[in-house]
Amino acid sequence: MVYDLIVLGGGPAGYHGAALAGRKGLRTLLIEERALGGVCLHNGCIPSKTWLQSAKLFAHVQNGAVYGVKADGLHFDQQVVTARKNKVVRILSAGVKTKLQNANVEVVTAKGEIQGKDEDGFRIKAGADNYKGKNLLLATGSVPVIPPIPGLKEGLAAGTVKTNAEIFDLNHLPASLVVIGGGVIGLEMAAYFSAAGSKVTVIELLDRIGGEIDREIAGILYDNYRKKGVDFKLNTRVTAVDGSRVQFTSPTGDGAVEAELVLLSAGRRPLLSGFGLETLQPHMEQGRLVVDRAGRTSVPGLYAAGDVNGRSMLAHTAYREAEVCIDRILGGTEEVNYEAIPAVIYTDPEVASVGETAESAARKGLAVQTVKVSMRYSGRYVAEHEGGDGICKLVVNRGDRRLLGVHLIAEYASELIYGAGLMIDRELRIDEIEKIVFPHPTVSEIIKEAALQYGSI
Amino acid sequence: MVYDLIVLGGGPAGYHGAALAGRKGLRTLLIEERALGGVCLHNGCIPSKTWLQSAKLFAHVQNGAVYGVKADGLHFDQQVVTARKNKVVRILSAGVKTKLQNANVEVVTAKGEIQGKDEDGFRIKAGADNYKGKNLLLATGSVPVIPPIPGLKEGLAAGTVKTNAEIFDLNHLPASLVVIGGGVIGLEMAAYFSAAGSKVTVIELLDRIGGEIDREIAGILYDNYRKKGVDFKLNTRVTAVDGSRVQFTSPTGDGAVEAELVLLSAGRRPLLSGFGLETLQPHMEQGRLVVDRAGRTSVPGLYAAGDVNGRSMLAHTAYREAEVCIDRILGGTEEVNYEAIPAVIYTDPEVASVGETAESAARKGLAVQTVKVSMRYSGRYVAEHEGGDGICKLVVNRGDRRLLGVHLIAEYASELIYGAGLMIDRELRIDEIEKIVFPHPTVSEIIKEAALQYGSI
Repeated sequence: MVYDLIVLGGGPAGYHGAALAGRKGLRTLLIEERALGGVCLHNGCIPSKTWLQSAKLFAHVQNGAVYGVKADGLHFDQQVVTARKNKVVRILSAGVKTKLQNANVEVVTAKGEIQGKDEDGFRIKAGADNYKGKNLLLATGSVPVIPPIPGLKEGLAAGTVKTNAEIFDLNHLPASLVVIGGGVIGLEMAAYFSAAGSKVTVIELLDRIGGEIDREIAGILYDNYRKKGVDFKLNTRVTAVDGSRVQFTSPTGDGAVEAELVLLSAGRRPLLSGFGLETLQPHMEQGRLVVDRAGRTSVPGLYAAGDVNGRSMLAHTAYREAEVCIDRILGGTEEVNYEAIPAVIYTDPEVASVGETAESAARKGLAVQTVKVSMRYSGRYVAEHEGGDGICKLVVNRGDRRLLGVHLIAEYASELIYGAGLMIDRELRIDEIEKIVFPHPTVSEIIKEAALQYGSI
Repeated sequence: MVYDLIVLGGGPAGYHGAALAGRKGLRTLLIEERALGGVCLHNGCIPSKTWLQSAKLFAHVQNGAVYGVKADGLHFDQQVVTARKNKVVRILSAGVKTKLQNANVEVVTAKGEIQGKDEDGFRIKAGADNYKGKNLLLATGSVPVIPPIPGLKEGLAAGTVKTNAEIFDLNHLPASLVVIGGGVIGLEMAAYFSAAGSKVTVIELLDRIGGEIDREIAGILYDNYRKKGVDFKLNTRVTAVDGSRVQFTSPTGDGAVEAELVLLSAGRRPLLSGFGLETLQPHMEQGRLVVDRAGRTSVPGLYAAGDVNGRSMLAHTAYREAEVCIDRILGGTEEVNYEAIPAVIYTDPEVASVGETAESAARKGLAVQTVKVSMRYSGRYVAEHEGGDGICKLVVNRGDRRLLGVHLIAEYASELIYGAGLMIDRELRIDEIEKIVFPHPTVSEIIKEAALQYGSI
């Protein structure tokens, strides 16, 4: 029997693509070695959000007096937090399983290995069995980058250094933590541990945190967490790790931080080896599998979605890429609009953005204007906040006044950013955004306020 | 001198319309007797959200143990909450003033009275001065309905009964409260007082709470608050009030509730008298000023926006109506799309909806299908919740599969509903919604999940 589609990997790209394919009537097989859900569910998005919910509550009640809420004694129980996280992961993993069953997807729990391709399809071995599929969707995801820093491997082996793969099993809050890497994962974990009560140091190679986010918003986030007691070391390179002692060098001098635990979050790289991909020889570039906006590799019938293509490395990008792959297999013409994919950092306040920043627009030679408004124009923000310094920034195409980017640092930003993505995807102009009805009072209204302020320039 | 526009009333419709008119270059005068901001800012949306933020924190930390957060000796300080509310209102009221100044709007603080209209415009008296405007925007708002219940007026005079106009000055939490009317205001206040620690009884004439919201969601909200200890008396009519003792009758018998305080929230009616409107004789119907989708009354040059037209009675509808009025004055052709206006109830969980319900669609003879999904399909919802019972419901036009309604009961619903309104306004079909990229993990993703489930029906 030949499957219409074999999916390698049971993370967001894999399970979402397989379920969609199954529902559309494709005979679909999904092969995953471990529990369904991928890094996102087991060691990423979901565990971190479960943890962060607890830490946010703890931090907010500590600051509750100004809101009229006083507690005599407060206690944070890491063991309860991790037990609850495990429960949440179990529930959602079971949900993925059910979703695949309902979509008539066969699931094989084994390590899949590509054996090659002949005229009637791709040959895949999983455990003791061999399978054949007309199409193959690679969704093997990514793994943490382990930089060649002396002592790092030993620290990982000894458990004094952890990555996202191990950190969420912690049952005890470290008194102190060094985070290597101030990107999205590093910042969310710094937010968690500092809110929960650890002394946190973040070491970042660049002169800013948050990677590609708007530079000004990165600065506001930095200031927020500095005030909360996080020690940031920017422009700083880790030179050696000894147990949980981290040595570094920076333009202002060398030094070391000793902490109870080290978290390594120095980025992720596509997982491209160890499962026979070399038998197909798809085109690769700089350690990533090259795909077009339709998810097609250079090998006919071989698609790739999610982190493995190295394009965006976000679960929801993976979903969308998988959808487009399935559409293409079914003969459609969809493409991924990478210009309208939102991204969130679940710190407190949250950072959410979609589309171009002023910097990315400049790199592309786009002529843009930006408008920035303080979140204090939002009645809800003021009502719910003492002294917040959030902002909303729009990036607008100068010629036709089309919206190209929206950047926010504020509570609820995560939940309202999809609408901004929709505006960008639909190529809305500022005058159209001015007319959208946002419920009052909400933080979402800030987009309208920014459009109105831009409109009156 | 003749103004291009005189605005009567400084609430959301008035200040938003005046600021827009001023920015567009119209010579604009705004007349308001009291502080700028209207009921929304002084006795409605903003005070309630300020209060609710405190109550939500208090309630969440009481339930914190399951999230690993334990607090001893919890205390809620109503005086702090109200003082903070006063500060928030002052900040935002000053913001409205600045907005009008920046837009070159003249503001007169006096009671405005319409004297009549001649060939060059409307004659308005305010204090000792007379003004003339080519156009007149009525934004006089609404007042609470005081039903003819024996003892009610006496209770209001004595202070044992309060409306939203007086309740937000409370510096002391009543041990018990009876809320007359289970609509939006009544429910938000019931949510506040019950979370803060009062024993709350809600008396509602209809067989459901929440007015026109989706019936099933109303039921879920009812169950949530019953579990939290709110006593609902549905199908129940208040027959008399004696101090703070409320007598009622219902199909199951008569009775009475004695409480420390009574809140009357039995609806609002347009304010149409006391400012000379009769001199213009605009067309009225059932106690409301009739306007078309362009905000025009039957009198040329006389526009009305906000509660005074009795159409929707929401601050953001008022904003949009005011925008359309100004556009029309400037010769434009805009209309208000009343089918895409979101509405929120800021309970915990929040209720948010936009567009048709199954019931309203049936009344209009629309052939629709609905799809309902549990919020437990949202990874974030599960990650942040123990045991929530939220849902998302889509109402879809059967023929072309256009989205007509979205109804949610869940945290963050308030902040994500505008995007659903945008989808409805843009007449998006289900297959287009399936392709929108929602960040993962968010509660907003539930809209995509519902679309996908509808798509596979």
